[in-house]
Amino acid sequence: MRYAFHDQLDGVFTDLAAICRRVEEAVRLATEALLTGTADVAERVISGDVEIDQARERVEDTAFSLLSLQAPVAGDLRVVVAALRMVSELERMGDLSVHVAKIARLRTPNIAVPEQARPIIARMAEVAEDMVSRTAAIIAERDVDQAAELRRDDEEMDGLRRASFAELLGDDWTAGVEAAVDVALLGRYYERIADHAVSVAGRVVFVVTGETMAS
Amino acid sequence: MRYAFHDQLDGVFTDLAAICRRVEEAVRLATEALLTGTADVAERVISGDVEIDQARERVEDTAFSLLSLQAPVAGDLRVVVAALRMVSELERMGDLSVHVAKIARLRTPNIAVPEQARPIIARMAEVAEDMVSRTAAIIAERDVDQAAELRRDDEEMDGLRRASFAELLGDDWTAGVEAAVDVALLGRYYERIADHAVSVAGRVVFVVTGETMAS
Repeated sequence: MRYAFHDQLDGVFTDLAAICRRVEEAVRLATEALLTGTADVAERVISGDVEIDQARERVEDTAFSLLSLQAPVAGDLRVVVAALRMVSELERMGDLSVHVAKIARLRTPNIAVPEQARPIIARMAEVAEDMVSRTAAIIAERDVDQAAELRRDDEEMDGLRRASFAELLGDDWTAGVEAAVDVALLGRYYERIADHAVSVAGRVVFVVTGETMAS
Repeated sequence: MRYAFHDQLDGVFTDLAAICRRVEEAVRLATEALLTGTADVAERVISGDVEIDQARERVEDTAFSLLSLQAPVAGDLRVVVAALRMVSELERMGDLSVHVAKIARLRTPNIAVPEQARPIIARMAEVAEDMVSRTAAIIAERDVDQAAELRRDDEEMDGLRRASFAELLGDDWTAGVEAAVDVALLGRYYERIADHAVSVAGRVVFVVTGETMAS
């Protein structure tokens, strides 16, 4: 019984890592759509989100059947609940990629991000995508050390967010109100993707060590 | 054993309703700080958020002890997991109120929202606060009919969000980039508070009927 439980639990984490890789792809494509103004790439992200939602449902069903049929004890129970929370956050990261893609789509064939904000937004996107990529590896390999490193990347993201505000509120901003609003919201979306990545990785730490990462 | 379980579960829902009322207060005060530019009211929201976090932890502890000690069967199990999700969302709604309060604090003694956007933002805030208030009642009374009504309010919120964009991107916008960015982010925060309220109310429907509200 216990062996079967842990096998199934491993299966759940394999699925979570796979969903995280889908999210990584969604972030990558949404950014591509955003920085090139390509409508059909944006559409792929938007229409592809349903697959992430379905994958979430499958993980939830497995987790519930694990809880029901195996009635895990305290520690294992918390691991299953952690998995349920991770999959909710991964789904949310997919939704945030859709928000990025929708801003891209709204402005095509133009590029939503004006030239003067492009380096910062491109870097935010890169950091976010990299964090999601590493989160997938952290889930797959239960890599506690990497999870701690992810925190540092999140600090870079916070710095980029501040820099983006300095840019769009500075005297040199000539791109107007609409572009400023787009950049502010995009910054918010990438920042939230990064926040969720840190949170998901933190749950892996909890799963492995039983301890909550200090926030 | 079953009686004890359901008594404890009722206690969890009483706690959830109480947390929701705290969130309602946070939304109300954050809006007051925002629309009057009052720093100490903003501070109260920001420093008071820790109490919502602590209340969340207590609900989680109770839910976990219910799961561990009572090993509930399928339906009850899903109710406990629903409660865990509700408390996460309520905490998030508290965080979003803090975001509103922080924008208020950043601009005091000035008012972050320029006059021409004040009617829309005031209405968004009113709708959000009302939705949170009714969500507290929905949780307390397991009121499935009210939960369906909440959906309609959320449509008003979506309409207000669109109207706010029309305002700040229109030719009549004279308040500048900074105010536009503030208004866009504030709109996002109120919209997310409303989204979470609908989601929490939807979980009450699930708890009562066993059915997921169509989205």
